[in-house]
Amino acid sequence: MNFLEERIIKDGIVKEGNVLKVDSFLNHQMDISLFEQMGEEFKKRFEGKGINKILTIEASGIGIACIVARHFDVPVVFAKKSKSINIEGDMYIAEVESFTHKCKNQVIVSKKFLSPEDHVLIIDDFMANGCAMQGLISIVQEAGAKVEGIGIAIEKGFQDGGRIIRNLGYDLQSLAIVESMDAATGNIEFRAQ
Amino acid sequence: MNFLEERIIKDGIVKEGNVLKVDSFLNHQMDISLFEQMGEEFKKRFEGKGINKILTIEASGIGIACIVARHFDVPVVFAKKSKSINIEGDMYIAEVESFTHKCKNQVIVSKKFLSPEDHVLIIDDFMANGCAMQGLISIVQEAGAKVEGIGIAIEKGFQDGGRIIRNLGYDLQSLAIVESMDAATGNIEFRAQ
Repeated sequence: MNFLEERIIKDGIVKEGNVLKVDSFLNHQMDISLFEQMGEEFKKRFEGKGINKILTIEASGIGIACIVARHFDVPVVFAKKSKSINIEGDMYIAEVESFTHKCKNQVIVSKKFLSPEDHVLIIDDFMANGCAMQGLISIVQEAGAKVEGIGIAIEKGFQDGGRIIRNLGYDLQSLAIVESMDAATGNIEFRAQ
Repeated sequence: MNFLEERIIKDGIVKEGNVLKVDSFLNHQMDISLFEQMGEEFKKRFEGKGINKILTIEASGIGIACIVARHFDVPVVFAKKSKSINIEGDMYIAEVESFTHKCKNQVIVSKKFLSPEDHVLIIDDFMANGCAMQGLISIVQEAGAKVEGIGIAIEKGFQDGGRIIRNLGYDLQSLAIVESMDAATGNIEFRAQ
């Protein structure tokens, strides 16, 4: 087991409905030292890809993306989930479904911050059905930029997202892939990597 | 002028309606090296306060808070703006008005992550009328924890938020306080600190 799998076993809580609560260290309270380890690991896995920008999506992707960005020495752009009066002008827009909130959102990125010269690493905390990720990929494509890699903290391997995105040829690296969880026993099985 | 004021002059854009767009480095695209400078500065200003936790609010506060947290070696908790099915159990709740989105939001923090032992530094990117900050302060109070300081990147000094919160006795430190802006000329005046 790697550092993140160990932490999930220690502090993650399995709930009914295939919900994995990791809010004590990942997506409500955030353990910055853990994020640093994730940054080091992603840096190793995406070394030499010429990454010049990290793209993530609000809200819980932002913290990880910012700490990871230190290891690549690049800026972070975060996609926003609703139109704000502070965003104007041309925007890339993708429609995404949210598993957690059971609704559809528009995800937007200002055209100023993604261009054909960009070599993008997409970072997020979770991947389940991959809808948010598909939206982010479509935004990078629309900008004419290149997705050099996708780094996820926790992938729910029993849902479709990861398989679809790997089938599309993307270099998707998840630090922990949960194969199965059992709310009754609290047991969590990870995919061997 | 300090490093942040210089950056606002260089890359900030003044829009009608007292809108200051800093989306190229602060709250859409994020310059992580700039955030590191902010972290160093806040560390100096809140040295010796025994801070053991940073509290911020989604979304644009999260990036700054995580980088600042490295300098204090503490975890970050971010307040969420709407109830999610992944949050359950006892929560601290505050009602806040949003200047940007012109609506009311509930802001919530799980009771697990704030307790009377906590010495909290609150971090956010912007302060205008201070509604979001008042919500965060009320959550810390409700937890019985102590607000040791409040660190803001950019304060709109011509709005009420900063004055009210300083009058309440809080140690509020804003790295840049905009006294006035002119959309016609693009001119920005900062408060001398």
